[in-house]
Amino acid sequence: MKRTAFFISDGTGITAEALGNSLLAQFGSIAFNKVTLPYIDSIEKAVAAVDMIDQVMEEDGQRPIVFDTVVDEATREVISTSGAYKIDVFSAFLKPLELELGSHSSYSVGKSHAINEVTSYMDRIESVNFAIDNDDGARTQHYHKADIILTGVSRCGKTPSCLYMALQFGVRAANYPLTDEDLASDKLPETLLPYRDKLYGLTIDPFQLASIRHERRPNSRYSSLDQCEDEVRIVERMFRTEKLPHINTTLFSIEEIATRIIAERGLERRLN
Amino acid sequence: MKRTAFFISDGTGITAEALGNSLLAQFGSIAFNKVTLPYIDSIEKAVAAVDMIDQVMEEDGQRPIVFDTVVDEATREVISTSGAYKIDVFSAFLKPLELELGSHSSYSVGKSHAINEVTSYMDRIESVNFAIDNDDGARTQHYHKADIILTGVSRCGKTPSCLYMALQFGVRAANYPLTDEDLASDKLPETLLPYRDKLYGLTIDPFQLASIRHERRPNSRYSSLDQCEDEVRIVERMFRTEKLPHINTTLFSIEEIATRIIAERGLERRLN
Repeated sequence: MKRTAFFISDGTGITAEALGNSLLAQFGSIAFNKVTLPYIDSIEKAVAAVDMIDQVMEEDGQRPIVFDTVVDEATREVISTSGAYKIDVFSAFLKPLELELGSHSSYSVGKSHAINEVTSYMDRIESVNFAIDNDDGARTQHYHKADIILTGVSRCGKTPSCLYMALQFGVRAANYPLTDEDLASDKLPETLLPYRDKLYGLTIDPFQLASIRHERRPNSRYSSLDQCEDEVRIVERMFRTEKLPHINTTLFSIEEIATRIIAERGLERRLN
Repeated sequence: MKRTAFFISDGTGITAEALGNSLLAQFGSIAFNKVTLPYIDSIEKAVAAVDMIDQVMEEDGQRPIVFDTVVDEATREVISTSGAYKIDVFSAFLKPLELELGSHSSYSVGKSHAINEVTSYMDRIESVNFAIDNDDGARTQHYHKADIILTGVSRCGKTPSCLYMALQFGVRAANYPLTDEDLASDKLPETLLPYRDKLYGLTIDPFQLASIRHERRPNSRYSSLDQCEDEVRIVERMFRTEKLPHINTTLFSIEEIATRIIAERGLERRLN
């Protein structure tokens, strides 16, 4: 049975998607066809959205589910004329919140993912630059400025985790890949020793590691299961003997890896 | 008046934050102190959260606002014993959605930002690698694989926008900085010509550009307002004469830049 979900917003659509995906994930047996309609910020665009929804309804033979985070009431009213089942975030929560806060909503469009302050924009850019400049152990002389330093074998998820922490939270994250040489010595590299308190280990299932490495260098020693098993065994032993906090990335998304590390280490977020 | 908002989740907290920030952004006159409590996935942790909320309530002399996306009902019930004003996403929307879908919710924890499929994980990692490998015009030989190629002067926001598109949407985004030489010729660089259809220009207010560049190289020609004004004038003229679609990044967040370009160009998203 085909069922379509629309995420409709007058801004980026990120909130509608996050909320909608959270709710839909609870219905694992249904395969949803998902459509995001961002920047629906005029009556004309709302009318076009309604046409699209109603057409999909006819094709599906089922009414679509609409997750609506449009702030403007007139636009929202147009959207509610479609035949879809509608989950309307602002109708549900904004009025009661006005009462609770004793304050009127500004009903201004697209505020949540807009630029708030120039300083937080700069923090974000600086954090992204930091992650790129301090990626892959290329440079270690800025580690004193890092909030966290991820370490582990090549391709275990360090780079995307660092970038996510930078973009989403403004956390300055460096990463240092443990090389064959580091693993052969069975000890933390000298260069990391001054930053013990900032280190966080990533590990991974050897099968998954081999499959990820295979994408980069197929049929190499680097991507062989033997090699991956060896590296993971050594690195996990090193994390235990060195008493480094660590996480197995196999079962976690990048969002989960990033938020778990931030929560566990109590890292300060520069963005809100 | 100090007012605290809590974002509480049994998962990453990303949905609670997105929703809560959307709603709170409508009350611009109130300065909220924001606290995220992720991974509240046991009765014990919920009890500790309630203690924390009630303590903050006493300190603030105001009841906090709690945005709750906890799925487990028993845990949610504990959280509702605090004195806070609570916005409870699953209570509000899950039951009606069960009726609409004729299906029971699995009430399973932390689903929305968990790993769904290995293929989409790989798509994401590949997109991040693509953005890094094709950052800053370092290499152009993979541009045929790009979904989009951002271009503009140095420090106008290309790199974070590309990384955000990769991480959030699995879009393969390259970026090419227009150098002094490119600008002097007043034409699109030869190397970009075969990829005209994938090009998207970024421009920026010269004052903001100067201030961003100043962070990197203070008091240089590169960061001088004169230089920034010259570069921006030339690049905007080039975008117009070459009829390149472009966006001024000054007033937009990275989320907005990314989602506007994706919507306008109709780029396929590899993540949902």
